[in-house]
Amino acid sequence: MKNIQHTLSQKNYHPLFKGAKYGIEKESQRVTLEGTLAKTDHPKVFGNRSYHPTIQTDFSETQVEMITPVATSSQEVMAYLAGIHEVVRRSLPNGEMLWPLSMPPALPQNDDDIKIAKLDKPEDVAYREHLGKVYGKRKQMVSGIHYNFEFAPELVERLFEDQSEITDYVTFRTELYLKVSRNYLRYRWLITYFMGASPQAETGYFSDCGKNAPEMPVRSIRNSNFGYTNDESVFVSYRSIESYAQNIQALVSSGAISEEKEFYSAVRLRGAETVAEIAEKGIGYIEIRNIDNNPFAIYGLTAEQIEMLHYFLMYMLWLDDETVDADELVREGERLNNQVALEKPLSQTALQAEGRTLLAGWLAMAEAIDASDNVLANIKDYQDVLTKPELTLAGRWMTLLNEGATQADLAVAFGIEYQAAAWEKVYRLAGFDDLELSTQMLIFDSLQKGIGVEILDRRDQFIKLTYGQHVEYVKNANMTSLDNYIVPLMMENKTVTKKVLASENFSVPQGKEYGSAAEAKEDYGFFAGKGIVVKPKSTNYGLGISIFKDGATIEGYEKAVDLAFDEDVDILVEEFITGTEYRFFVIDGQTESVILRIPANVTGDGQSTIAELVKVKNQDELRGEEYRSPLHKIKMGELEALMLKEQGYTFDSVLPAGEIVYLRENSNVSTGGDSIDMTAEMPPCYKDIAAQAVKALGAEICGIDLIIPDIQKKATIATHEAYSIIEANFNPAMHMHAFPYRGEGQRLSLNVLHALFPELN
Amino acid sequence: MKNIQHTLSQKNYHPLFKGAKYGIEKESQRVTLEGTLAKTDHPKVFGNRSYHPTIQTDFSETQVEMITPVATSSQEVMAYLAGIHEVVRRSLPNGEMLWPLSMPPALPQNDDDIKIAKLDKPEDVAYREHLGKVYGKRKQMVSGIHYNFEFAPELVERLFEDQSEITDYVTFRTELYLKVSRNYLRYRWLITYFMGASPQAETGYFSDCGKNAPEMPVRSIRNSNFGYTNDESVFVSYRSIESYAQNIQALVSSGAISEEKEFYSAVRLRGAETVAEIAEKGIGYIEIRNIDNNPFAIYGLTAEQIEMLHYFLMYMLWLDDETVDADELVREGERLNNQVALEKPLSQTALQAEGRTLLAGWLAMAEAIDASDNVLANIKDYQDVLTKPELTLAGRWMTLLNEGATQADLAVAFGIEYQAAAWEKVYRLAGFDDLELSTQMLIFDSLQKGIGVEILDRRDQFIKLTYGQHVEYVKNANMTSLDNYIVPLMMENKTVTKKVLASENFSVPQGKEYGSAAEAKEDYGFFAGKGIVVKPKSTNYGLGISIFKDGATIEGYEKAVDLAFDEDVDILVEEFITGTEYRFFVIDGQTESVILRIPANVTGDGQSTIAELVKVKNQDELRGEEYRSPLHKIKMGELEALMLKEQGYTFDSVLPAGEIVYLRENSNVSTGGDSIDMTAEMPPCYKDIAAQAVKALGAEICGIDLIIPDIQKKATIATHEAYSIIEANFNPAMHMHAFPYRGEGQRLSLNVLHALFPELN
Repeated sequence: MKNIQHTLSQKNYHPLFKGAKYGIEKESQRVTLEGTLAKTDHPKVFGNRSYHPTIQTDFSETQVEMITPVATSSQEVMAYLAGIHEVVRRSLPNGEMLWPLSMPPALPQNDDDIKIAKLDKPEDVAYREHLGKVYGKRKQMVSGIHYNFEFAPELVERLFEDQSEITDYVTFRTELYLKVSRNYLRYRWLITYFMGASPQAETGYFSDCGKNAPEMPVRSIRNSNFGYTNDESVFVSYRSIESYAQNIQALVSSGAISEEKEFYSAVRLRGAETVAEIAEKGIGYIEIRNIDNNPFAIYGLTAEQIEMLHYFLMYMLWLDDETVDADELVREGERLNNQVALEKPLSQTALQAEGRTLLAGWLAMAEAIDASDNVLANIKDYQDVLTKPELTLAGRWMTLLNEGATQADLAVAFGIEYQAAAWEKVYRLAGFDDLELSTQMLIFDSLQKGIGVEILDRRDQFIKLTYGQHVEYVKNANMTSLDNYIVPLMMENKTVTKKVLASENFSVPQGKEYGSAAEAKEDYGFFAGKGIVVKPKSTNYGLGISIFKDGATIEGYEKAVDLAFDEDVDILVEEFITGTEYRFFVIDGQTESVILRIPANVTGDGQSTIAELVKVKNQDELRGEEYRSPLHKIKMGELEALMLKEQGYTFDSVLPAGEIVYLRENSNVSTGGDSIDMTAEMPPCYKDIAAQAVKALGAEICGIDLIIPDIQKKATIATHEAYSIIEANFNPAMHMHAFPYRGEGQRLSLNVLHALFPELN
Repeated sequence: MKNIQHTLSQKNYHPLFKGAKYGIEKESQRVTLEGTLAKTDHPKVFGNRSYHPTIQTDFSETQVEMITPVATSSQEVMAYLAGIHEVVRRSLPNGEMLWPLSMPPALPQNDDDIKIAKLDKPEDVAYREHLGKVYGKRKQMVSGIHYNFEFAPELVERLFEDQSEITDYVTFRTELYLKVSRNYLRYRWLITYFMGASPQAETGYFSDCGKNAPEMPVRSIRNSNFGYTNDESVFVSYRSIESYAQNIQALVSSGAISEEKEFYSAVRLRGAETVAEIAEKGIGYIEIRNIDNNPFAIYGLTAEQIEMLHYFLMYMLWLDDETVDADELVREGERLNNQVALEKPLSQTALQAEGRTLLAGWLAMAEAIDASDNVLANIKDYQDVLTKPELTLAGRWMTLLNEGATQADLAVAFGIEYQAAAWEKVYRLAGFDDLELSTQMLIFDSLQKGIGVEILDRRDQFIKLTYGQHVEYVKNANMTSLDNYIVPLMMENKTVTKKVLASENFSVPQGKEYGSAAEAKEDYGFFAGKGIVVKPKSTNYGLGISIFKDGATIEGYEKAVDLAFDEDVDILVEEFITGTEYRFFVIDGQTESVILRIPANVTGDGQSTIAELVKVKNQDELRGEEYRSPLHKIKMGELEALMLKEQGYTFDSVLPAGEIVYLRENSNVSTGGDSIDMTAEMPPCYKDIAAQAVKALGAEICGIDLIIPDIQKKATIATHEAYSIIEANFNPAMHMHAFPYRGEGQRLSLNVLHALFPELN
């Protein structure tokens, strides 16, 4: 890697050098709100653990492991980390939370009370029993973060092309990662200094009454030789991929470790299942394993940490080639890291000088490659923190402890705060809240059930869901492979929808379609004396619609026809149907939810003005912007003012107690309407009619609107006077069903998921 | 029906009174271009006759029966009649055509040479053998038109509501149709006078050497007692539905007729399978059976005739209730009709006086109900024709015969003209040419194969296809239930399409998507030195696209990024792929067609200017407007001028002989490009790659564009340098495949139809 700094300094290299893939694994202990280890099993709501790619159990039944998919930006990996945490926190039984520290909470006296994870495969259980035996169960209760990292493949390819030392690409890539790994092992003490966050153990961690314990507090028990490490005799060389593989294979053969994965290095070489395979196919990426859970971060790690680790690894590549023997380098790194890990958290590190040199070089690199102002500022901050240990994570934690609280009290306080935050906006999913609410719900359910989620296009709400070999693509949360293509096209066309439903004997408003005003006007005789609606064929926004509940005069009719033609090239004249409109949500042949939508309204208290009542109602957490909240704020615009005026009110009128005033004619939730869950109240006969109508349309997922004069009257498909189907929607909103203004709510995204993946059942 | 004229005169009744349903059955003999009876079987291309709802055989194997579906306007029924004729004519073997007359062509001497239709069911064949025996095979060779007619149900309902004589609706409807039927039977001589068109028989029709023949010419042999009638002893009363049913049942019992359908009245009561059922359920509609084939009309009947028959039937309802005995009325009508039918075509009718009265009353009705100017003018024309027999159909025919030609010669000349017209614009379908070409093709194929076609929405190209119980809906000819909904959504998004294809190891252009210019510009290093295309993510019209075949400078790149962001909120930067672009059309897992599109071009002849060459090329029948022609005219606009300028030409340049000049950069057929059928030339390996890619996308019907540097090089999916998939289209145009500029062409609509209805195979 000659002249690597010169090469990487070239402008054309900058975007490649800054590119990376990340994947994060993070463990946390489940505890009660009092901070004692949970006694419950891993929540059943996560489904089958044998497969779950996202939410697992590590050593113990209480140790949740959260695994992000591979992401190509720090924002993306952070989004997954956030989302998965929120899913886990909302899935915990009442009274449980995640312990925010790497060091476990106070552990039970009796070893047997530390339950090994109840996994399906006997070999997985046997391995954990072996670990418990060799290292002690208590040590296995430590949690932490593994940071999987890959440089942008384009970078490695370009570097390979721009050099001539190594002729084989795979060899080149392996050498590159070996260099980064060795340097990381050598200099990782700096990360331990900044990010170490396990200064103190709770009761029961050091099982031998603290005999083998360090003098606490330290910067990081977990990263010291009192943490989660192999026996001192275990040494693996990073000189070459062959030595690495051979050393590990020899350790397994000799029984020093039971499996390859029992090699607990701060850097594990990755890219294939076994070390032998990695030696053959080359290193694909590396796994950084020495990151403590950050108690100050709601998800145990901040976006800034993710980025700084990335830049530190870039720096490990940037460094000049080592002049020291490869194994010496690693051993020296081990020693220095242990030294720093065991330093007092609020004391200056003994390695100031090397720290200064490293940080200066790091900053120089960042400047040479036009790093963002943010990154430059962070490195400069680190220069400051180097001399101010109270600003390290361990230092900040100790400062809090020094104010008098016990570590357990502090951990409980943080844990409760984080748990409460997860429930704050229950309809949203952290990390994904730029997406539409329905898509957020579906992602939540997918992450919970172990279905892999990939966002193919954020703006387009296009996601890929994977369960084993089964792949499904979903747009806008319910546009899926379940429906065939002609169905939505049919529903887009009101006339076609009606013709199809009518041909199967469903009740639809009688009416005619016209392509010219003259033709429509000539047909007045058809509608004379009947209640009718004249409307443009395809618009949905209420424009150009005239309603004649008791029939139209010829003049009124002709004017209505002209108005409708102002909005569209085709118009419909339909009979007016009286009754209440309900939205039936049908999935997979079943009506799963029924809601009633009521126009924007407020109820008087005898004291407040209408404007004040609106403001109060709008404060509801559920009310926000379109597609991002289950309900929308009531507006106080011209239309609302007009509607009030018709009723003899203004916004400043004080409404009598108990009186309801409507601010809109239409009942759309998007104009401030209320949604009311009627799923339980709606008689089965109407649910069946809706489901049958959706079946007649050939749809799998459909929101179908029925006007029903009286839901107490029994009806069948043939009882045409009992109902009328006025519209079918192929992409019906789901959030207003899940989080209604009143009523229990139906989580339809989960129905969609089960319909897409019947194997979940 | 008291005061019916007053009632129907009310304005609100007018649209109801003018509404109707129609269905037309029309027979024609298949003959050679010389006018002799065809010796071939009913064409196999129509598929199985046992079911075919549209194209049948009547008595003989040569007698094609064309049946329209029920239509709700005269335009609609005319469209079906036209379309079905065009299908039949284009499906006939070379050298055959339809005989334009009701009277058959010269018949063979030997009865055995008149082949009874080769139907599947023995009873159908036996019935025809019985008819041949009783009436003589020769009489059964006469063809004609049956006009099925129903008043708008809303009319009958409103009339029922507005009267109090009859309390049962079905009885009322039956009485109404009985009145119309009796009056029609009484006054139909007027129709025979205007529309009779069988003045002469050819050799062999009157088998007994003309002993039983009238003195020809007459107005209508077919409508006289020398035509297709029951024995004189057969009388059925139209007094009541009971008498009608009982009389027919008695005739069958006594053996006077073999089946109910052997009752050959000019008006048959319809609405159920048997007369007993009709008596029970009431008359649904009536079948007018006395219309001769009009030799002057390409489809044997004009739109005007259809409308005038409708108005005549309205008039039959409008007339005051009869004062004469019902049976007397019918008998009198029979007599008068026979009289008029046997009058000399060019002589005045003896019934002038009654004719004048009828026409005056008819016109008065038309005026009272605000009939269109067209209808009024037609009735007035009829008033004129009443005194000018040379203007009747029979009169016009005789006038031509009197000029010297034989009837056979004339019939052949008309037949050939109509047959040629059917092939004039082979890519269009008469009656449906307001629809998109691909939809016209699919309707053609459906009518040919016996699949029922209903246009649900003309503007939307939405049709319903029915085969037995199997219903399919189709939009734009290839948006069907075969594809699932997520597939087109996937294809609409270029990034998602590429991601899906790339995940299955297909070769797609490498590239990145950006949502901000800053982000895109920062990534210049990724693309430096490579051939790239910078383009807006979703536009298709070439706007904002920059191509750098040999890589871009940073300035060029940044400008291109800004240009692309002018057009869209997201842009793509992709590697530039060299090679030729082919469109593969994949249906049901198979590549069924491959075309190469070449930009608009002309080839010099050493004499003509480019403008002249363009004009000549544009005269091609295949070139027309978008969606209505398989190719489009080359434009001579700014872009074309610019393109010529770059090559050193103007529109006025004379192009050297053999030199090809391109007028466009892009190869779209919509901008005047040529399509070339490459289906035969394209090696199977690429067809397979295309089909596999479509499968990976989950699509059933897809047009997928591959850039291939050299089609002679063998390739597999993994041979990424051999091809690159640049786009997939979920509603690919089919007409340019069916009617290419060069090459055989592939009828993809037929593949779509077979994929939709596998039972056709």
